[in-house]
Order: sequence, then C-alpha cells, then structure tokens
Amino acid sequence: MNSNPSNVMALTSTTSNKKETVCIFGTGDFGRALAYKMIQSGYSVVFGSRQAQISSLIPKGAEVLSHTEAAQKAPIIFIAIPRQHYNFLLPLAEVLHGKVLVDVSNNLKLNQYSQSNAEYLAQLIPGARVVKAFNTVSAWALQSGTLDASRQVFVCGDDKKAKQMVMDIVRALGLTPLDQGSLLAAQEIENYPLQLFPMWKFPIFLSLGLTVFFFFYSLILDVIYPYVNEKKDFSFFIAISIANRISPILALILLALVYLPGVLAAIIQLYRGTKYSRFPDWLDKWMLCRKQLGLVALAFAFLHVLYTLVMPIRNYVRWRVNGRVISQVLNNRTDPLNNTYAWLSDSYLALGILGFFLFVLLGITSLPSVSNSVNWREFRFVQSKLGYLTLILCTAHTLVYGGNRFLYASSYRWYLPNAYMLSLIIPCIVLVVKFVLVFPCLDKPLTRIRQGWERNPRYSE
Amino acid sequence: MNSNPSNVMALTSTTSNKKETVCIFGTGDFGRALAYKMIQSGYSVVFGSRQAQISSLIPKGAEVLSHTEAAQKAPIIFIAIPRQHYNFLLPLAEVLHGKVLVDVSNNLKLNQYSQSNAEYLAQLIPGARVVKAFNTVSAWALQSGTLDASRQVFVCGDDKKAKQMVMDIVRALGLTPLDQGSLLAAQEIENYPLQLFPMWKFPIFLSLGLTVFFFFYSLILDVIYPYVNEKKDFSFFIAISIANRISPILALILLALVYLPGVLAAIIQLYRGTKYSRFPDWLDKWMLCRKQLGLVALAFAFLHVLYTLVMPIRNYVRWRVNGRVISQVLNNRTDPLNNTYAWLSDSYLALGILGFFLFVLLGITSLPSVSNSVNWREFRFVQSKLGYLTLILCTAHTLVYGGNRFLYASSYRWYLPNAYMLSLIIPCIVLVVKFVLVFPCLDKPLTRIRQGWERNPRYSE
Amino acid sequence: MNSNPSNVMALTSTTSNKKETVCIFGTGDFGRALAYKMIQSGYSVVFGSRQAQISSLIPKGAEVLSHTEAAQKAPIIFIAIPRQHYNFLLPLAEVLHGKVLVDVSNNLKLNQYSQSNAEYLAQLIPGARVVKAFNTVSAWALQSGTLDASRQVFVCGDDKKAKQMVMDIVRALGLTPLDQGSLLAAQEIENYPLQLFPMWKFPIFLSLGLTVFFFFYSLILDVIYPYVNEKKDFSFFIAISIANRISPILALILLALVYLPGVLAAIIQLYRGTKYSRFPDWLDKWMLCRKQLGLVALAFAFLHVLYTLVMPIRNYVRWRVNGRVISQVLNNRTDPLNNTYAWLSDSYLALGILGFFLFVLLGITSLPSVSNSVNWREFRFVQSKLGYLTLILCTAHTLVYGGNRFLYASSYRWYLPNAYMLSLIIPCIVLVVKFVLVFPCLDKPLTRIRQGWERNPRYSE
Repeated sequence: MNSNPSNVMALTSTTSNKKETVCIFGTGDFGRALAYKMIQSGYSVVFGSRQAQISSLIPKGAEVLSHTEAAQKAPIIFIAIPRQHYNFLLPLAEVLHGKVLVDVSNNLKLNQYSQSNAEYLAQLIPGARVVKAFNTVSAWALQSGTLDASRQVFVCGDDKKAKQMVMDIVRALGLTPLDQGSLLAAQEIENYPLQLFPMWKFPIFLSLGLTVFFFFYSLILDVIYPYVNEKKDFSFFIAISIANRISPILALILLALVYLPGVLAAIIQLYRGTKYSRFPDWLDKWMLCRKQLGLVALAFAFLHVLYTLVMPIRNYVRWRVNGRVISQVLNNRTDPLNNTYAWLSDSYLALGILGFFLFVLLGITSLPSVSNSVNWREFRFVQSKLGYLTLILCTAHTLVYGGNRFLYASSYRWYLPNAYMLSLIIPCIVLVVKFVLVFPCLDKPLTRIRQGWERNPRYSE
Repeated sequence: MNSNPSNVMALTSTTSNKKETVCIFGTGDFGRALAYKMIQSGYSVVFGSRQAQISSLIPKGAEVLSHTEAAQKAPIIFIAIPRQHYNFLLPLAEVLHGKVLVDVSNNLKLNQYSQSNAEYLAQLIPGARVVKAFNTVSAWALQSGTLDASRQVFVCGDDKKAKQMVMDIVRALGLTPLDQGSLLAAQEIENYPLQLFPMWKFPIFLSLGLTVFFFFYSLILDVIYPYVNEKKDFSFFIAISIANRISPILALILLALVYLPGVLAAIIQLYRGTKYSRFPDWLDKWMLCRKQLGLVALAFAFLHVLYTLVMPIRNYVRWRVNGRVISQVLNNRTDPLNNTYAWLSDSYLALGILGFFLFVLLGITSLPSVSNSVNWREFRFVQSKLGYLTLILCTAHTLVYGGNRFLYASSYRWYLPNAYMLSLIIPCIVLVVKFVLVFPCLDKPLTRIRQGWERNPRYSE
Repeated sequence: MNSNPSNVMALTSTTSNKKETVCIFGTGDFGRALAYKMIQSGYSVVFGSRQAQISSLIPKGAEVLSHTEAAQKAPIIFIAIPRQHYNFLLPLAEVLHGKVLVDVSNNLKLNQYSQSNAEYLAQLIPGARVVKAFNTVSAWALQSGTLDASRQVFVCGDDKKAKQMVMDIVRALGLTPLDQGSLLAAQEIENYPLQLFPMWKFPIFLSLGLTVFFFFYSLILDVIYPYVNEKKDFSFFIAISIANRISPILALILLALVYLPGVLAAIIQLYRGTKYSRFPDWLDKWMLCRKQLGLVALAFAFLHVLYTLVMPIRNYVRWRVNGRVISQVLNNRTDPLNNTYAWLSDSYLALGILGFFLFVLLGITSLPSVSNSVNWREFRFVQSKLGYLTLILCTAHTLVYGGNRFLYASSYRWYLPNAYMLSLIIPCIVLVVKFVLVFPCLDKPLTRIRQGWERNPRYSE
C-alpha cells in the first residue's frame, strides 16, 4: 500500500491553489466575453487598456490597468485587438519579453494579408512566445455559453510550453483544444472561421451544373416537344414532373461519382504497380470530397422520394388516372390485370425502396458521432460494401423503371434519348469496371500493391 | 538534438508509477460502482465503512477499513453517502483536514435544500477541500460501461488544485470533466440530473396550447358545422383530417416564432441605438429556446408529411375520388384537364416538398455532432439564410394552398376564417418586417450597432 | 493578487520548450504515417531501421539511424513492426531497459495468438515499460487527417507513468486517449479493430431468421394458396406485398423484444427479492443489445412506411381500385360512405403515423451525440416512457388494422392464422405483464428492491 500518498498527489496536481491571473489587452466585445468566461472558470482577469477606468460593461471582478501594469501581472496575455493596432505593442516589447501572447484575432476576408496575424505579431515582438488560439470561437458563444457551433479551439505556436499553457486554459473553459503544430499553421487557422463549406463547393457546383443541364434537357423533351408537336400546354410539369426527373438522375450520377475515383485509383495503382506514387491532384481532391458528394446525392434521392410519393395527390395524376377509368367504362370494357406490368411496377418500386433505405443508412453512418463510434473495419464495410450495394440497387431501379422503353422510337423525341438513359452511363461504367476488378487475376495483385508490394521496388526495409 | 531526453520526460509525466489510492466513504450502489470502475482504471481503492468487513458485493481488490483508517490512506475521499448522514463526518474533521472531499450526492427533488449538498459539506468540514463531481453519472452506467447517457462529468470547487485532481481521475475513467467554476455552481450541478428537458418546456407547452386551440377550432368548423347544417357525420375526421390541419398550422407558426425574436431584437437595437442594453427577460429566454421551438416545428412538419402522404390510402378519400369519377361517368361527361388547377396543385406540393427538405436539413445541422463540426459562419449561414428560405417556402406553400379561397364566403363558416388563414398571420408579419429590415437605410445602422457602434456612446476605448 | 505568477506557471506547464524526441522502429506504412503526424505536431522523430538510409518515403525532418542509436535518442519507442519480427529486439534488451515501448501492432484474425502482442513484447523485454496504443488508428487516417472513423485511441499498460506519457502524445496529435487499464486489456484492444459490429450480430441474425420464417409463411398464404385454390398467379406479391407484410411484423416483434427483457428482469427481481443476484447470462446479453434490437426494428418500420406509401402508385393497386369503380358504374350503383370503415381506416393509419413518429424520435435520441447531451433522467424518460408509448401505439395500430378479421373463417387459410396475428403475441404479453407490474402491490416492492432493499438481506452497512 501507499504509505505516503499525499506526496504522490502533490506531484500529480499541477496547478496551484492560488487563482491564476491572465491578462487581456483590449476591452472590446471579444475581450470582455473572454474575461467573463475566464472569471466564471476561476481565473483572475486583468485588462490592459488605454483608459484605466472600470466601464459598466467590464465583467465584475476584472481589474482594468494600463497596458504595462497589466502585462506585468500575468505570464499570459490575450491580444484582443485588431491587427491594425498591433504596432502599439512595440513600446511594450520589454515588458512582453518571455510572456505568452495569445493572438485571438480574425480577419474579414480569406488571405487578407500575406502573413498571418500571429506571425506578424511574433515578428513584431520577437522576445514573446506567440500562440494562435480562440479565433474560431465567437464572443457571443463565450458569453451565452450556448456553444452550438464548434467547441473546438485550434491552437498553434512554436513554443510547446506556451502552447501547453494556452491549451490548459482552453480545457479549463470547457472547450476542446486541437494542437495544429507550429505557428506556420496560423494562416490556415485564421482562414478557418471565414470559410463557408469549402469541401462542399465542388459537389454543390457540380450538382447545380448538372441540374441546369437536365432541367433544360427535360424541358425540351417534356414541355416544348409536346407543345410544338401536339399544341399541348404541359408547362406545369416544371413544378413536379421535371423536378422528379432531375432529382433521381442527379442522385444516381452523384452516387456513381462517389465510387468512380476509387475505381480510377485502383486502375492507376495496377498500371503503376505501386501505391507509393502520388495520385494526380484532381483525383486526390475528388477522393477527399466523396462524403460530400454522397450526401448531396442522398439529398436528391430524398427529394425524389417525396416527389414520387405525392404523385397520387397531384391534380394532374388524378385526372389522368380517372380519365383511363372513364374511357374503360365508356367503352364498356374491364382491362384484366397485366401480370408483367404488375411485376415490373412492383419490382422497380421495391428496388428503389431498398436502395433508398440503404442510402439513408449510409447517410446516418456518416454523421460524425456515429462514424466516431465504429472501428475502421466497420466504417469501411458500411461505406464500401453497403455503398456498392446501394449503387447496384439504384442502378437496377433505374434499369427496371426504363424496362424495354429504350427499344421504342417514341422514347427518342427529336432523336434525343430519354434523360434517364443518360443517367445510367456513369453508374454502369463504375459497376462494370468494379466487377472486372473483383476477378482474382486483378484483385490479387491489387491487394498486394495495397499492402505495400511494388512491381519495381524503389524502397525496401 | 536532445541530448538527455529522459530528463525532459521525467518532467513531462506527472503521475507516479505507483498506484494511486483513492478512498470511498459508503459501500452503497454508487460507491461500489465507482470503486469497480476505478480499480479497472488502475487505482487502489479503500472503502471507509462502519463495519470493516469484506462483503461479497465489494469489488475484488478493494480494501474495507474504518472511516478513519481509510481516510488516512488517501488524499482524496469520495463521499458516497446521503446528505442526511453527513454529520457522522464531524468527528473525523481532524483526519479530513486538507483532504479533497468529493461530493457525489444527488437529491430527490429540485432545490430540495436551500444550500447545495456540497456547500453544506464544505461548511461542515471547513478544513477539507470540497469538490462536487460525478453526480450526473449513474451507478449502473459506471458498472456496465454502457455510458449511453452523458459521459460529461460536471466538476466544481473552490480549490483549483483539488478540482484538478478530481478532473484527472474523471479523465482516467474515460469520462469528460467539465469545469463549472466555484462551489457556488454546486446547486445547479445537483439540480442538473433532476431536470427533465428544461429548455423544451416552453416550446412543448406552447405547442400543446396551440394544438388544443386549433383542435377545437377545426372540430367546430369541420365536424360540428356540417353536422348542424347538413346532418352529416364527419366525426372520423378527428383521426387524420383534423390532425393534418393542426400539424401544418403548428409547424408554420412555431417556425415563424423561431425567427420572430430575432426580428424583435433588431427593432429594439435600432430603437435604442446600441447593442449594449440588455434585452427584456422574456426575449432573452425566447431566444435561448429557438432551437427547441424549431425542432418541435419540424416534428409537426414531419407529421404533416406523413398525414398527407397516406391520404390516397384512406377509405374516405378513395370513396370521394371514386364518387367523382362515377358521377362523371353517369353524367356521360369527361372533364378536361384544368391547367390552372394543375399548376396550383403542383406548385403548392412542390413548395411544400422543398420547404420540408430544407427544414430537415436545418434539423440535421442542429444535431450536436454536426453543429460541432461546422464553423461559426457556416452555422449562422445555415440557421439564418437557409432558415429564412425555409420560412418563405413554407409560407408560400400555405398561401398557394389557400389560393383565392379567402375570397369566397364558403370559407367563412359561422363567420370564422379557415384555420389555415390564422396560421399565416405570424409568418407574414415576420417576413414583412425582415424584408423591411433588409433595406439599406435600416440594415446599415443595424450592422454598425451590431459591430459595437452606439448612437449615444456610453463607453469607448 | 498574485505577486509572482510566473512561478506558478512554471509549475503548471509540464512540457519543455525543447522539442521532444520520439523513436519509431520500422519504416513501414504505419511507422511513416505516425512520424508524419508527429512531426506535424512538433515532435522530433528518429527512425530505427536496419538500413540507416533516408528513403524518399520517409517524412521530411525525420532522422533514420540504427536501432540502437535511435533507441538511445528517445525515452519512448514505437514498435511499428509485425509481431513475427519482435524477437529482433532481444539483442537490444539492454538499450531498451526502462524505455517506454509502444506496441501499435494489429493481427489479421481475432484471437490469432493466445497471448496479446503487447504482453508478448513485455515478456520478451522484461526491463521495458510496454504500453498498447494506436492500433485502432489506420495509417491512412493519420496521414490524410480525415479521421472519419474513430478519433479514439485505446491505451493500456501496467506502468501508469508510461501510459501517461503515451496519452499525452495521443492528445498532442489531436486524438482522444481512452485508458483501458492494465496490459491485460491488450488482447481486447487488439481484437477491437478486427470486430465487425459484434453488438449487432444477435439482432441481425434474429431478424434474418424471422424474416425467412415470415417470408415463407406469407408466401404460402398469399401466393401459393390462391394459386392452388383459384389458379390465380400473384407471384409479383413477392416484391412489395409480402415485403410489406414482413416488415411491420418484424418491426413490432423486435420492438416488443426490446422491452421483454426489462419485464423479465423485474419478475426475476420480484421473485428473488433482491437486485444483487446476477441475472442469467442470456438475459444480461439480451439487455445489452436492446438498443441494436430497437434500431433494427426502426429500420423495418421505415421500410414498412415506404412500402405502404408507394401503394397507390403500384400498377396492381391502381388496377384493383379502378376495377371496383368500374364494377360500381356497370352495376349503376354508387356505394354510400361507410362511416365505420372510414373510422377504422383513418384510426389505424393515425395510430401507425403516431407510432412511427415516436419511433423515429427514439431513434434520434439514440444517436451518440444526442444521448450524450441529455441527462440520465431524460434518457430514461425517452427510452422507457416514450418507448412504451410507441409499443402501445404500434400494437394498437396492428389491432385496429386487423379489426374483427380474426372472427372470420376466411382469415384462416389452410387453418393457419394470418401472419399479423402471430406478430401480436409477444407485444401483447409484454404490455399485459407491464400493466400488471404497474399495480402498486407489485410496483412498490419492486421500487424498494431497486433502491437496494432485500427481502432476505445478505448485506448491510
């Protein structure tokens, strides 16, 4: 047993009983919010300000001193002032020597300056140990405590010890520090809060482009063609019929585009005989946004389901269905059940339902909290095996939906194929190539290459 | 390079090689579960108990001693006994001097005592360093390891060092400590596990009230009116028709109520010319439960979608649709397609589908794990821009659904407007005011105010 | 105020300003990826390799030395080589004495060796302090930074100090260390990345078995029976009709099986008069996979909803509905609205919608990030109260759907009950027993037992 446990504990506990003091330069919104949160978490806060007066806005318990006095009180100083005013720190260089300066600043635009604010600060006060942190947290979030947006605080700095001190404070405030390495990362950290879904840009622009293309394609075939040829006005097709033609096409194409880069990568690896050559840049980028592509595809699939399910409620569809009944009655005839049609109709619906079901499952497992709770093998199983099954089901759904329609001339208005046929090109290519790659004569060398084997080894241990 | 790295590491590692000993007073369910988990994580556990006997229930490896002996063995003592028995600690005051006492107790009711258990303990043993922690974790969760409910352990205490020691233990058990500040927070922490969705109370009671109101309103207009006037029994409308009338109304009203406080806040800020005055209390509270309001609205929208989509399967709807066909046939007449109706029907469905789609998107981004992975700008973009787009689409959906129905006297049974008209009031107000606020003459000063500018400055740096 | 804050801070910060050096044995994929990530996070990395040459694949900034030289440079050595080559470490035993050896290895199969790799390593080099870690992280995830799958790093080891050092590194890399206790846990940690949804196995196999049973049961009654008796070919029923018969049945049965073990446990506790006896093993296992059972049930419920909603679009259903209209017309007759049917149809749909709605709610609250943000009482409220309400609604939905059909001989083709009747057995048993257990004469003793009371006390404090 431990004869003297308190000694052990004395080593364990690393913070003093006395309240630590932190200094904040700048009494603006962010400085005050930070002070508020820190006082709440048990720190002593001292503000450095030009006017050493206590404003009613300063959080209760904080002291306001001159910059020099404040800086002397604490080993760590938060610089909560805009970059343009950094040079006022120059006269304080001596006081700031050896201190930890935390740069919390943000810019208004991406890459506004060639040098990040934190690096600029480090260059201005070479004797100080500059750490970039807290720029991703908003003043409002700090003050209200409703940290709906990220709890993550990116931290970087060249001085490990200084960084550790800042990260301890981050943790004490109930936030999660993420070490991003040296101060070189500051530029990226400063750009982070200015970004608007950077990973989503390509998938969204791609799907917008495809949407526009298929919209006009469908408009020509489904609205303009009957108007020109039969003088029928089907302009109301725009609201649902055409939307329900675009959404499944996009869902299928985008889903296939999720699996196309993997197939391309396999071909490249097989051709090169090694996995240690870098892929072309566009392939790398494509692979990194596969998740986003898949989720956009799921969104279109979801719209397709809704558009399809409201069909029986649509005025036009009811009119058409009723018209058929009335014509049967007026001709005094009862059509018997056509078993082939029943089979086709039921199986393309069933394939679509199962495909959508698996698609939703894929979507759920890509939620951060779900994907965090599965291991690597499970994640790959879901995203690869289940993913391909989804693609197969959705492609089959489209094929059965088309049936033998592609054989009839009426499907080729103005010699153009029906839009659904275009949507099948990429999925079919992906599935065929994948099917070929599964053959042992290709799968075996590929597996060996992925385990590190090289056809023309350049490196060995 | 580092010539003597092991010295560096000696500083780095802060815990001794020897097993740390913790003491637990109380061998009840929680005490034993805690001991079980701690032994698993590599601690030595010693129980303080009245009878120093080893019961079969005590986890293997734990020692049971008298309270005094046990307390002497460890620097940290978990008090796993009910508050009513705390005074038995009084004779031990001397042994407990300087020790860290961890109060893990919970009460049975909210605010059961005027003073929190932890503060009571601190007052009882003034020489000890009291830390409140672990009360939010259940014995069952500790023992079974299935921490489905929260992994978060709220910790508070006046002694930073003691708190740090407890937080280290929390981390070692695989849980997440959240520093809540001084012991004053203990009351709140003790109330936490007794709360039942406190943020949801207002949205749920509000929607219950509105549901009851619109239920009776619709009952009168849709069931009682035809019964009184035409002796028709439509009582079965209660199951779906009326439910499908209430749910979209509530979805729309609640969604508008999410954006109303923001609009009110803007008006107040414009009027006051500063953002530094506190909003009235009711507005503050309203703003804090916007997320919950929105999610309740989404729930009603989801119900509305389901109720709408089952329409064609309903016996009554089939009967009505078939009735129309039969009457057409019997009158030997085929109604032509009414293009205006087709347009209206398709566009209100399309607007509803797009509105619901965006609504689901908003719901998904409000999942904690998703909102944690976006930055502040992205979160605001989704919740504000996409949110208003959703409101616009849903309001348009209702307007187009109504069409010119409001012009006909038949829509005003017993001089009462149709229920859907009532639901449009708040959304239209919000959208009109928001539209006005977007004009530069109002938007510019508002933006400046939100950046800290004051019309009558009271404060400046 | 703090007169000498820098002293305090000197204690606080535990890491040196100088870069720490870590050593990695093995320059394979994982070793290089680890080095890459570590250099990024500010560590100095030195490789131990047989050939002390710098390959182009070695991350920039890393040194490559002989094993002995490399080991001397750092207090911590990552063994990134396969278990089969561990014995090459034997000659290095002296150099490795006192060093922290991190075993990052994985096996190819579950329980490939009787002894875990880490324990084998510890036995091989008795003087070293072995820690198991990092085996759950993939090389690809480390290098690309896209840690979609888990950020969790399980750590175990007999030496607390060594473990702490490794956990500090884990944190510095932006990952989450989870202390799993002593080196005995290594076997489990090594098995973890090889597992494929172990908790899901029972629910999935059970539902597969039930699916097969009900598929053939329905095939016999719905396809083979009409074919044999009436020579009608309904084989297309397989695609949707039978699927839509199986999915609600499975959803209901699996949902009931979620609540059955709780009811059984209550009976056992009441019978034994104590909660301190272990439940039989099968009951324990059953209780641990209730969440998975519930989610599989939700998946079937989701399929049921989709299958039901596409009904009006199905060719067969349209044909049948139109057939009825035509027969009415041809017989020159207009069926009046049957109020009872309208009531039954609407109420079973409404019950189903509400049941599904609550079911989805239960599913959402079981998402890790949602369940992490509710307290224990809220979690129990949702999973127990709302769960039972869901079960009641779904059972009522099935009962009303059946109506008085069970009274008619036509429901018993070949003397077999309709499949939906079989699905009601378990839910009704669960609900009846639960209803009985709610009576005070049983509820009171049960509550006391669950609070720790024992009828024949074996233990007391």
